[in-house]
Amino acid sequence: MAQTTRIVLASRPHGEPTQENFRTETVDLPEPAAGEALLETLYLSLDPYMRGRMSDAPSYAAPVEIDATMVGATVSRVVQSTDDALSPGDVVLGYGGWQTHSVEKVKHLRRLDPQGAPLTTALGVLGMPGFTAYSGLLTIGQPKPGETVVVAAATGPVGSAVGQIARIKGARAVGIAGGPEKVAHLKELGFDAAIDHRAPDFAEQLAAATPDGIDVYFENVGGQVWDAVLRRLNTYARVPVCGLVAGYNATSLPEGPDRSGVLMATILRKSLTVRGFIQTEFAPTQTEDFVRDMSGWLADGQVQYREDVVEGLDHTVEAFQGLLQGRNFGKLVVKVAD
Amino acid sequence: MAQTTRIVLASRPHGEPTQENFRTETVDLPEPAAGEALLETLYLSLDPYMRGRMSDAPSYAAPVEIDATMVGATVSRVVQSTDDALSPGDVVLGYGGWQTHSVEKVKHLRRLDPQGAPLTTALGVLGMPGFTAYSGLLTIGQPKPGETVVVAAATGPVGSAVGQIARIKGARAVGIAGGPEKVAHLKELGFDAAIDHRAPDFAEQLAAATPDGIDVYFENVGGQVWDAVLRRLNTYARVPVCGLVAGYNATSLPEGPDRSGVLMATILRKSLTVRGFIQTEFAPTQTEDFVRDMSGWLADGQVQYREDVVEGLDHTVEAFQGLLQGRNFGKLVVKVAD
Repeated sequence: MAQTTRIVLASRPHGEPTQENFRTETVDLPEPAAGEALLETLYLSLDPYMRGRMSDAPSYAAPVEIDATMVGATVSRVVQSTDDALSPGDVVLGYGGWQTHSVEKVKHLRRLDPQGAPLTTALGVLGMPGFTAYSGLLTIGQPKPGETVVVAAATGPVGSAVGQIARIKGARAVGIAGGPEKVAHLKELGFDAAIDHRAPDFAEQLAAATPDGIDVYFENVGGQVWDAVLRRLNTYARVPVCGLVAGYNATSLPEGPDRSGVLMATILRKSLTVRGFIQTEFAPTQTEDFVRDMSGWLADGQVQYREDVVEGLDHTVEAFQGLLQGRNFGKLVVKVAD
Repeated sequence: MAQTTRIVLASRPHGEPTQENFRTETVDLPEPAAGEALLETLYLSLDPYMRGRMSDAPSYAAPVEIDATMVGATVSRVVQSTDDALSPGDVVLGYGGWQTHSVEKVKHLRRLDPQGAPLTTALGVLGMPGFTAYSGLLTIGQPKPGETVVVAAATGPVGSAVGQIARIKGARAVGIAGGPEKVAHLKELGFDAAIDHRAPDFAEQLAAATPDGIDVYFENVGGQVWDAVLRRLNTYARVPVCGLVAGYNATSLPEGPDRSGVLMATILRKSLTVRGFIQTEFAPTQTEDFVRDMSGWLADGQVQYREDVVEGLDHTVEAFQGLLQGRNFGKLVVKVAD
């Protein structure tokens, strides 16, 4: 009987997740039923949304239950399949979670071409983060040539794709990141300007980098960056909102005054469009376009990506904690097996 | 030489406008230059946006200067015209402001048909407020049959049109107003439900009136109504924002905690569209459709309207103060001359 070593949610975090919120255990896996396959995890994706799944606050998705395996997208190798569509040795994109092995429904798996793009890109630039950038920027942000697009967490897999796609569409891309190394990397990626949000004069630097204001702000961070951006938004600016990672570990509301009315008044005064989205909304209609466009941009070098690969499932919790603090540099994946 | 009695902005208000913020004076008018007309004001429109013009805070429009005539749309009679397009006795829609006479450019005037709809409707249901409702609801709100549309200040000229147009489009209309008389009027207008925002159990009543949640909230009020609505919004709900009258007299930000992050998190979690707009954005492309549709709905009784007519320019300030407190009941106009 196959076994899996898995990381389960032991308790719900209050603030930053700690090692005590997780428990590693080795358990037997059931035999694959009809239409299922036994998989060995090669790479596990770590993404900010997982912090939301650890809480039982209202969300767009159900929380991970206590004692259940933490969820996550995976690149896995087929060990055994009851469905002719997959054979042992095939490599697939699945949703196996934080564990070494999983049993999943074959219809939920997508076979990857080991001769094509590197396998990890299915978790990053050619996967959910890349699609989040593509669909949110193009459908909601709608950057026009000459407009200014700003994105934070800009060396992350979503932000770096947002900036590079914005440039492909003829817009000016301004990236915000934490620390001089990341800022330097943004310039290598071709961003027109790059700003360190830790700089004491961040707001002034943002103003200097956006002399014509901001037409699109791709929001995946929130907090003080958003406050500074709001003041620079132009009339009719668009704000796709796909994440607010700065607040994911918050344990209480920020002190007053209550600025929510100021936010609404700014939306009114500047005729802003602020639109939340989860990429699944656009997946049925745009995945094909995305795969075609992004594959082409990767092939001709118009889009570059960076990965931060952590070795071994036993480093997953530490890597995830770092992700929420912005310590990763590029798309964070855990290499679980060779 | 013609004279006008006019109400000028004497000082900028701190909080609620007082009589001392205005000054009434009688002054000579210049002779109409080429392309101009001398007009006698018949009706002056009073609208919440005028509070914004009294302040020099950042806005989508320039403030009224100190000692300048307060602005406002007017229905006026032509006294003298230098342009053949208008003759003495013609009645026009203009922007004469808070005064008995004005000199305006003929190209900015629109001739009204005294045999058609009542003249005051050019300031209300067939004018800017009606167009605000029409364009914001249909372009941004996009109500679908069976969906639930909520609007506050629902007996006002914008809100009452929003609710009635929503019903014409097959949606369920829930109106919010202040006091039992207004609530009763909403039911006469055909709203499916009507709620008094002064009720101590307002939030519970709103929940009971929106058993399937809220798909469109037409925002023209803000404040505590918005807080209650936000909790009832469905995934993919649309929020056209055309006004925030509850906060127009505020002198400081509300006490904390700061809930702006909660607002952004709700926009994300529910994939909301929050879109500010000023009706001028849609005027070039939608006025013709609006006039055709709204005229038809008025003719066949599908849309009804109510006016609150105040007699005499000398009651203008008091009427405007009441408007900001919700004391008017229907579209507020001042009858300046017969």
